[in-house]
Amino acid sequence: MPLSPPFYKPIAKEIEVFEHTYKNKLPVLLKGPTGTGKTRFIEYMAHQLGKKLITISCHEETSSTDLIGRYIIKGAETIWIDGPLTKAVKEGAIIYLDEIAEARPDVIVAIHALTDHRRELFIDKLGETIKAHRDFMLVASFNPGYQKGFKELKPSTRQRFIAVSFQYPSPKIESEIIENETGVTEALARKLVNIANKIRNLTELGLTETVSTRLLVDAAKLIHSGLPKRLSVKVAVVEPLTDDEEIATALTDLCDLMI
Amino acid sequence: MPLSPPFYKPIAKEIEVFEHTYKNKLPVLLKGPTGTGKTRFIEYMAHQLGKKLITISCHEETSSTDLIGRYIIKGAETIWIDGPLTKAVKEGAIIYLDEIAEARPDVIVAIHALTDHRRELFIDKLGETIKAHRDFMLVASFNPGYQKGFKELKPSTRQRFIAVSFQYPSPKIESEIIENETGVTEALARKLVNIANKIRNLTELGLTETVSTRLLVDAAKLIHSGLPKRLSVKVAVVEPLTDDEEIATALTDLCDLMI
Amino acid sequence: MPLSPPFYKPIAKEIEVFEHTYKNKLPVLLKGPTGTGKTRFIEYMAHQLGKKLITISCHEETSSTDLIGRYIIKGAETIWIDGPLTKAVKEGAIIYLDEIAEARPDVIVAIHALTDHRRELFIDKLGETIKAHRDFMLVASFNPGYQKGFKELKPSTRQRFIAVSFQYPSPKIESEIIENETGVTEALARKLVNIANKIRNLTELGLTETVSTRLLVDAAKLIHSGLPKRLSVKVAVVEPLTDDEEIATALTDLCDLMI
Amino acid sequence: MPLSPPFYKPIAKEIEVFEHTYKNKLPVLLKGPTGTGKTRFIEYMAHQLGKKLITISCHEETSSTDLIGRYIIKGAETIWIDGPLTKAVKEGAIIYLDEIAEARPDVIVAIHALTDHRRELFIDKLGETIKAHRDFMLVASFNPGYQKGFKELKPSTRQRFIAVSFQYPSPKIESEIIENETGVTEALARKLVNIANKIRNLTELGLTETVSTRLLVDAAKLIHSGLPKRLSVKVAVVEPLTDDEEIATALTDLCDLMI
Amino acid sequence: MPLSPPFYKPIAKEIEVFEHTYKNKLPVLLKGPTGTGKTRFIEYMAHQLGKKLITISCHEETSSTDLIGRYIIKGAETIWIDGPLTKAVKEGAIIYLDEIAEARPDVIVAIHALTDHRRELFIDKLGETIKAHRDFMLVASFNPGYQKGFKELKPSTRQRFIAVSFQYPSPKIESEIIENETGVTEALARKLVNIANKIRNLTELGLTETVSTRLLVDAAKLIHSGLPKRLSVKVAVVEPLTDDEEIATALTDLCDLMI
Amino acid sequence: MPLSPPFYKPIAKEIEVFEHTYKNKLPVLLKGPTGTGKTRFIEYMAHQLGKKLITISCHEETSSTDLIGRYIIKGAETIWIDGPLTKAVKEGAIIYLDEIAEARPDVIVAIHALTDHRRELFIDKLGETIKAHRDFMLVASFNPGYQKGFKELKPSTRQRFIAVSFQYPSPKIESEIIENETGVTEALARKLVNIANKIRNLTELGLTETVSTRLLVDAAKLIHSGLPKRLSVKVAVVEPLTDDEEIATALTDLCDLMI
Repeated sequence: MPLSPPFYKPIAKEIEVFEHTYKNKLPVLLKGPTGTGKTRFIEYMAHQLGKKLITISCHEETSSTDLIGRYIIKGAETIWIDGPLTKAVKEGAIIYLDEIAEARPDVIVAIHALTDHRRELFIDKLGETIKAHRDFMLVASFNPGYQKGFKELKPSTRQRFIAVSFQYPSPKIESEIIENETGVTEALARKLVNIANKIRNLTELGLTETVSTRLLVDAAKLIHSGLPKRLSVKVAVVEPLTDDEEIATALTDLCDLMI
Repeated sequence: MPLSPPFYKPIAKEIEVFEHTYKNKLPVLLKGPTGTGKTRFIEYMAHQLGKKLITISCHEETSSTDLIGRYIIKGAETIWIDGPLTKAVKEGAIIYLDEIAEARPDVIVAIHALTDHRRELFIDKLGETIKAHRDFMLVASFNPGYQKGFKELKPSTRQRFIAVSFQYPSPKIESEIIENETGVTEALARKLVNIANKIRNLTELGLTETVSTRLLVDAAKLIHSGLPKRLSVKVAVVEPLTDDEEIATALTDLCDLMI
Repeated sequence: MPLSPPFYKPIAKEIEVFEHTYKNKLPVLLKGPTGTGKTRFIEYMAHQLGKKLITISCHEETSSTDLIGRYIIKGAETIWIDGPLTKAVKEGAIIYLDEIAEARPDVIVAIHALTDHRRELFIDKLGETIKAHRDFMLVASFNPGYQKGFKELKPSTRQRFIAVSFQYPSPKIESEIIENETGVTEALARKLVNIANKIRNLTELGLTETVSTRLLVDAAKLIHSGLPKRLSVKVAVVEPLTDDEEIATALTDLCDLMI
Repeated sequence: MPLSPPFYKPIAKEIEVFEHTYKNKLPVLLKGPTGTGKTRFIEYMAHQLGKKLITISCHEETSSTDLIGRYIIKGAETIWIDGPLTKAVKEGAIIYLDEIAEARPDVIVAIHALTDHRRELFIDKLGETIKAHRDFMLVASFNPGYQKGFKELKPSTRQRFIAVSFQYPSPKIESEIIENETGVTEALARKLVNIANKIRNLTELGLTETVSTRLLVDAAKLIHSGLPKRLSVKVAVVEPLTDDEEIATALTDLCDLMI
Repeated sequence: MPLSPPFYKPIAKEIEVFEHTYKNKLPVLLKGPTGTGKTRFIEYMAHQLGKKLITISCHEETSSTDLIGRYIIKGAETIWIDGPLTKAVKEGAIIYLDEIAEARPDVIVAIHALTDHRRELFIDKLGETIKAHRDFMLVASFNPGYQKGFKELKPSTRQRFIAVSFQYPSPKIESEIIENETGVTEALARKLVNIANKIRNLTELGLTETVSTRLLVDAAKLIHSGLPKRLSVKVAVVEPLTDDEEIATALTDLCDLMI
Repeated sequence: MPLSPPFYKPIAKEIEVFEHTYKNKLPVLLKGPTGTGKTRFIEYMAHQLGKKLITISCHEETSSTDLIGRYIIKGAETIWIDGPLTKAVKEGAIIYLDEIAEARPDVIVAIHALTDHRRELFIDKLGETIKAHRDFMLVASFNPGYQKGFKELKPSTRQRFIAVSFQYPSPKIESEIIENETGVTEALARKLVNIANKIRNLTELGLTETVSTRLLVDAAKLIHSGLPKRLSVKVAVVEPLTDDEEIATALTDLCDLMI
């Protein structure tokens, strides 16, 4: 957790919603595409509320054991090590399960009793049930566009969360983020945002995902560092988006014109 | 198990049926969609009958070992730990296998001898067979709508249970539940129930599941806590139901009108 | 094994067939749908012949190790534990492999040498071959209807068994079973049997399985215990058969008329 | 291995072929459907040549470790146990890999160097290569009809074997086998063989496999033991072949006429 | 890492781009077909920057444990061994994940926190988070053509990298590479490059990949060593490209003409 | 490795190619169908060059651990055992990975650094990198016809090898091999070769593979040993090629005519 407050520009009412869910200790699901600021938002909220944040990036092989804990052998003894979820439950931290739909099914089940009126965690390997700390809060993220077709979140799981949608920030806010993070001029930041919005609207290109704020920040960093502007946009924005040579050329031409 | 009796409003004759199956020690299967009160019902019955309730949330990797027990290594010794099912069988508790169809096949087989005239549990790792306590009872739940297409319960397993169907409660009862749990006014509770029933009838939207009572309670909590009504319904009812932007907009418009 | 002889009403010549296969020590395969009395029959035969019966309910993960035995670690030593099959082979018991087609392929292979003139069991982990006790007998069951489409028994395995088909009992016998097990009147037992036969002939409903005697016994128990007749039939016969609301309603109407 | 020579009636020139492959130490593959006497043949040849026979029934999970050997933990020590193949290689026995196509691929590879001019076995876990005993011989069996569609033997593996095809024996020989093994009269044995050949020609029934000599021997045993003839044929020949009620009825009618 | 600077001829602005990403500590993805010099480039850059390079060739079974580290048992103790990624993070080396798309998903997730502003590595087995050394840099490679159809890199992962495309070098540069590495004459090197470019344009042959510089260097080595020119080109260029006899003949004829 | 030089008749320039690749320490891939002498060739070359040959027959479960080495537990200690590849790398032997495409992907990756300018082996379990002995050489084989449709060698892997194609030997050479290995007359050897070539041209039969020299040698051995000629050809050539009765009959008739 950074010492200075992380920079975050609210897009809609997400801060109010979060404050009320926190007050009511309801679990929250952050929905939205890559790079719309979900991670940054939860870092900001944790800082605002003065709570410790524990983040778990879930993937296809994340299991409840990874979250709850395991016995390990140390010298001649076996000792129990609390996992990050158990720590959060005990200390009253905010746990953030990033891309929860990727995790193995026992993860979803393990958090069941934490998401309803019981607010408890059952540690099967110890045979113990622990009541969550008064301040404990569970937050998860989910990318609906990305998962289209494969990994889905079961409806019965979704209904356990208050859900907040994230979208790309408005041009003004996105531009401020770029300036704030890289030190480039407002004019350049605006140009980068214009390029991004142009590409975001080119739905006919069939890109699986489109330009995130992260890509723009990277491009701005390279320009600020002295790499030519066009080259910076090419390697930080165009090349990460596509491997198709024709699409890459078309996008590069477009960017060259607009920068 | 809560000390005060859990709030439960019977929908049909489920209490009588349960009392008679309990008297005859027949296993019971609770069927029905998410959020129709199956879990709440079994908690209520356990309280009424003065029995301890042990709940297992089943998932794709729940195995008979998780239920029956395992050897663990503690220091230099291996010791046997009874699983939750074994404990229930010995102590005469009610075991509740939530979403039993999700569990691995050895779970189904492990409970076979507990569901017929034998009423016994074979612990293969110990080579022991234990007779169930006189008061032991086995209850399972199953969501038929949800499983449509993938996880099914084998007919030979289903026929081992007395089955009780759960549906959404009547508007009057659902409204009382909301008031009772959140402290909102009857008028507001009624509005939320009306919204729910409106959406439940919109079958043309193709939602995999529809509004559970849980979602309405969450919305009511947020409203009671001070979040604007429309925003509360949006994040607690609409967003958990769908990721489709058009459907979400349509539902939000509908809710805005009705709240 | 119960002390009093289990109640069993022969359907055809299955008792004679079994006695002769037992005399010739030929393995037997009991074929037939759920609830036609296969398990009850083998329990009866074991009692009649004065032999110990060991039952294994097979499932997708039953392996030869589960049947033959394994090394376990106890304190600082590893000790060998005979599995149920090995015990049966040594003691001359009847082993009953229920739903053998569900088991893993090494189970089928493990019993090969027990099903032909060799009558021996090879315990690979010990490197020992043990000759079966003179009285040892191997019995398996298989549900052909149920497995249609997925789990099949290899023809080369089937040809190792004498096979006996089981069907639902005649109305007279089925009625006697119900009276005998629950204490209801003959009139009520007959009504339940009539309902069952009516539903068994409704092949146009597309039920995966149909009413087993077990369901009728459960319904009779609930009625005898004081639950209203119609409600008893609904939860013990109709609900376990189907999750389709329309079919359930049609069946309930039918039963309401006939009870 | 029985003390008296096993009864075996040659069908074609298989004995001569085997003797010459044995002299040349070429590996042999016995091809043919279930119950055509492959196992009996190899038992007979082993007896004739005065060699020890070691049989392995292969299945989907048979691995090279099962054949070659493994370390096991006994008390506080790990000790190496030769597997059946290693024993055969060292002692100069005949190893018989029944249904070799079922085994895991490492089994096929493990025998490579035993099937060509090298005649050696590499034990990877010990890092040792052992030369086969002068008398060691490798024999495998394969059921081409059965495997149609799924398990195949790689052409590069097949070409490592001299191959001998097995078919059902001639009526005269099959009849002698039945008499010899069960003690029934020649007249009855002939009738059973006639039934078998009738069914074997009913290819329009679509049976996956057809009547093996084993089924006839079982039927004869039951008749000899006193079970009625028609019932014996029904449970020993018809029921093991099919679960289709109509086909079973047709076959039963046919057998009733012919016995 | 070689003592003399590795030979590398830049194709475009890749050196400048790399220097700026290194200055900004942004992760880099090298995209391009086999043999276009990605590995050579990263070796050259590591040498130029005076940094240690640690290379991991990823494959389908590369897991985060392989990268981060594991406990191993040494004598009677378990000791922790840092994996190559952990070493790089601590020492400030450049880690090169070759063909990252092949690795298991937990690898991608393990590097998440190293690719954004956090620049830290979470070692779950130790429960420790380590901050990356100031000089640590993460580089990965990806072959977009090759993976077409199967292994893809998730868009959310791609957007974490600055991406640089690699193509085959220009004839002049490729020729210099060949001369420099093998000692053949410029004339011969040119001929080999001409052959390569001819084949690279024969897209109608449907070759999955085409002639890499590596193949040309191998051919030149064999020629320099004394093997006839045509034979050298056949075994070093044609045969590695195809198993189709007709295509191989056509390519051989072409090469015979051009060498 | 035999003490007398193995008999090998070169088909084309494969000996020269091998000598030059050996001089340049380039890895070699031997391509071609079963029984065209790939294994015999590498044995011959190893003998000619006076180098030790270590052969690994790869299969679906061959892993890098099998090649590189593993820790084993011996008594109370864990000790490291070099695998065959590690031994070859240290001692400067020729390693021959037979049917490399069958092996698991980590095998391919493990040899990467041995096949390019680095010539080193990374032993991840020890955290050690060992430089290959000056004389170490890596050879692999691959059967392109056989793998058609399933197991393929990745283009990026293929391009790491000089590739040599193997075909069936010319009639004259094949005949000499048969005489040399079995002692039959030239006339008989020629007849066998004629049969083989006739069958090899019968592509309309759809045989997955066709007659290898091995089959002819086996047939000649049986004939030399005294088995009738036609019977020998039937069991050594026809039966190993097909299980289709009609094709077998056609081939037998053909062979009967030609022998």
